[in-house]
Amino acid sequence: MKIKIISIGNNPPSWVQDIVLQYTSRFNDNFKIELIEIKSDKNSKPMKQKKLDEAQKILKFIDNDFIIALDENGSPCSSKALSEKLSNWMQNIPKLTFVIGGANGLDNTIIKNSNWVWSLSMLTLPHNFAKVILVEQLYRASTILNSHPYHRE
Amino acid sequence: MKIKIISIGNNPPSWVQDIVLQYTSRFNDNFKIELIEIKSDKNSKPMKQKKLDEAQKILKFIDNDFIIALDENGSPCSSKALSEKLSNWMQNIPKLTFVIGGANGLDNTIIKNSNWVWSLSMLTLPHNFAKVILVEQLYRASTILNSHPYHRE
Repeated sequence: MKIKIISIGNNPPSWVQDIVLQYTSRFNDNFKIELIEIKSDKNSKPMKQKKLDEAQKILKFIDNDFIIALDENGSPCSSKALSEKLSNWMQNIPKLTFVIGGANGLDNTIIKNSNWVWSLSMLTLPHNFAKVILVEQLYRASTILNSHPYHRE
Repeated sequence: MKIKIISIGNNPPSWVQDIVLQYTSRFNDNFKIELIEIKSDKNSKPMKQKKLDEAQKILKFIDNDFIIALDENGSPCSSKALSEKLSNWMQNIPKLTFVIGGANGLDNTIIKNSNWVWSLSMLTLPHNFAKVILVEQLYRASTILNSHPYHRE
């Protein structure tokens, strides 16, 4: 299954890249992870316009994909429930696309175009944290499906 | 206010220490953060016994403190709600102690002795992730109380 992760941000710190690589390199051959980083706009536009511009850039990378937007107002789920969703997607969907907003979150254009809006936590998390949590949770979900001991009940 | 963070683990990776330092160094003088790391037991004891032994070690560092245990079965809260709790604690409690379990979570001895059991997320998170999220959320809560722009609504 192809999994695309689109995120907005400028030069994520090396620890983010290290952790993302640490998990993506551990997936088995059933998964192909593609990471797309879109630079956030550094100019002084109003926040709403910035989010809209970011949304336009994101949409260029989306082509009839099954889209999951990460947003704190979305639905929460447990790691076990995520693994059940992943199992279902693996059977029915060729390509998943996860979208993580920048410092200001995602524009409604993306939220409305999404097949699922997922909240990692009720807490407002820095987007770099969201990125490493997403990759770790996808890896964890895959280990749950394979009965690998990484996830201990 | 004194805030003690007790965590179980062996030699956390440098990115954990870097992020913890990055946030703890940004608190204003109203907060004094103390970090206590307890080594986890590496021997082959059953998981239940390991957790009990870790709980005994944790209890040695707790002395009539107001205890908040981090556990995925606890109550969730938003960053804004956490800032309201922090404001209340600052007025009523001289010393807060947060406890983060090891790879197997916290023993019930700690959960039962806690004043609040807090779930950062419905997801099962690695304990290193929990530690950096906790420190970031405490910093975020302090900025919400000070109307600092770190937390954008």
